[in-house]
Amino acid sequence: MLTGKHVVIMGGDARQLEIIRKLSTLDAKISLIGFEQLDDGFIGVTKRKVDELEWDAVDAILLPISGTDGKGEVETIFSNEKIRLTDEQVKKTPKHCILYSGISNHYLDACVNKTKRKLVKLMERDDVAIYNSIPTAEGTVMMAIQHTDFTIHGANVAVLGLGRVGMSVARTFAVLGAKVKVAARDSHHLARITEMGLIPIHTSSLITELKDVDLCINTIPAPIITANVLAEMPTHCFIIDLASKPGGTDFRYAEKRGMKALLAPGLPGIVAPKTAGKILADVLTKLLDEEK
Amino acid sequence: MLTGKHVVIMGGDARQLEIIRKLSTLDAKISLIGFEQLDDGFIGVTKRKVDELEWDAVDAILLPISGTDGKGEVETIFSNEKIRLTDEQVKKTPKHCILYSGISNHYLDACVNKTKRKLVKLMERDDVAIYNSIPTAEGTVMMAIQHTDFTIHGANVAVLGLGRVGMSVARTFAVLGAKVKVAARDSHHLARITEMGLIPIHTSSLITELKDVDLCINTIPAPIITANVLAEMPTHCFIIDLASKPGGTDFRYAEKRGMKALLAPGLPGIVAPKTAGKILADVLTKLLDEEK
Repeated sequence: MLTGKHVVIMGGDARQLEIIRKLSTLDAKISLIGFEQLDDGFIGVTKRKVDELEWDAVDAILLPISGTDGKGEVETIFSNEKIRLTDEQVKKTPKHCILYSGISNHYLDACVNKTKRKLVKLMERDDVAIYNSIPTAEGTVMMAIQHTDFTIHGANVAVLGLGRVGMSVARTFAVLGAKVKVAARDSHHLARITEMGLIPIHTSSLITELKDVDLCINTIPAPIITANVLAEMPTHCFIIDLASKPGGTDFRYAEKRGMKALLAPGLPGIVAPKTAGKILADVLTKLLDEEK
Repeated sequence: MLTGKHVVIMGGDARQLEIIRKLSTLDAKISLIGFEQLDDGFIGVTKRKVDELEWDAVDAILLPISGTDGKGEVETIFSNEKIRLTDEQVKKTPKHCILYSGISNHYLDACVNKTKRKLVKLMERDDVAIYNSIPTAEGTVMMAIQHTDFTIHGANVAVLGLGRVGMSVARTFAVLGAKVKVAARDSHHLARITEMGLIPIHTSSLITELKDVDLCINTIPAPIITANVLAEMPTHCFIIDLASKPGGTDFRYAEKRGMKALLAPGLPGIVAPKTAGKILADVLTKLLDEEK
């Protein structure tokens, strides 16, 4: 239980609703900023304005997954007002107050540095990334079915990278009946790919290894599907780039060659906001509970 | 090889292109009716008008998957002209001429009865139905991801029927991590469901067994998801009805209860026309080859 904990939730999207629901069930005191248009009634939850909040009694501040923008503004889909996180607000909080966000940027890093508060970047945690790889893989499956005229079953699929997302995506396409090859560099990754019954290829030989693929899914956040690689791939090959912006694909060259290539970050929040919210809610409540 | 065979293809959609490609590769003589707007050039293929065709030299007539309408008209996406199959045309063909279509109707049944020709309904063949269940299952996965805010992974899924489509759908959702129960009536189906590691339920106990499902996929072509069953299901449950029109769901009551329910027949031609065309092309060429 989180009885006595005061959590401020500043902005967000549908995922925040699952977090609010869970924190409310666990008896936390919740102040919502930037949620005027939210109709749902939760127990122990109050909608507040930034300037009427008792910052000195706040134990945790939850920002949106996107954190803040360069000027400290936070996104919210539940309000038309501008919501901003400032050093002044954070300074007023007790020293044990922790900030939680999905990712960080210069503004947020500077804010926690100046105010000497701890910032937890939820999306950088291994557990969150692995749980999130489930909706990411499903979103990738959805895109593959939508954007091609062939079935995943029987298709030649290449997955680039065997990280937290790559492993889930490779496994998912394999169980759907695709012939999956996975590109990696580390020898223990190549061993794991073999153990999974998939075809291991080395990232250094993409030019020769991607000649027969119908679908190519990249998870490596570096320029990997270069013009040289694209030039040897079949033009009907559909590329889904899951790496964070700007992705690992030379999109300009892909378009020039008439190949369909899409950058698809943030799939969990799009295809399964409820599950994505639950993932965050579960990890967040565990972290809040540990901080007691 | 199909050298010397003269096949008339009357109307159709993208799936016909795969059939034309394959028959052309196998050296058949192909006459296309209703394909004026098709630009692709295939070897051995001629575009013809109904009245200029030498019907007495035709070995096979391929109709669209939908067959004809009640007046003998065939659908085509490659022409604006009305194309009609008549008894007179069929009468002119040699006695060994066989008609192929996806399904039949009164008009087509009457036509082959009067002219004493054989009609092969491709969609009623077990092999075609099983091959087609692959794109059907993938289309169902796509719909489930698109229309819900949770992941298939971890969801409670009910599949009604363990026929040719039901088995593929159940297996597909299970490998994606769903908790799958399958409803059937026959004891050997219930045994197979158990063998597959899924939860068997009897179709007679749907009222009690569907109380906790997030996703319900029907493949039984009979009124099975009745108002009584719907009344006990969670309102967030999404229903995908794959049974042929009018499906097995009381859609009126589902809507009244605020439940999302979609009838989704013909998924292979929608989500994977190329694969669906290849399936038909493979079976058709095998049948034509056997008829030699």
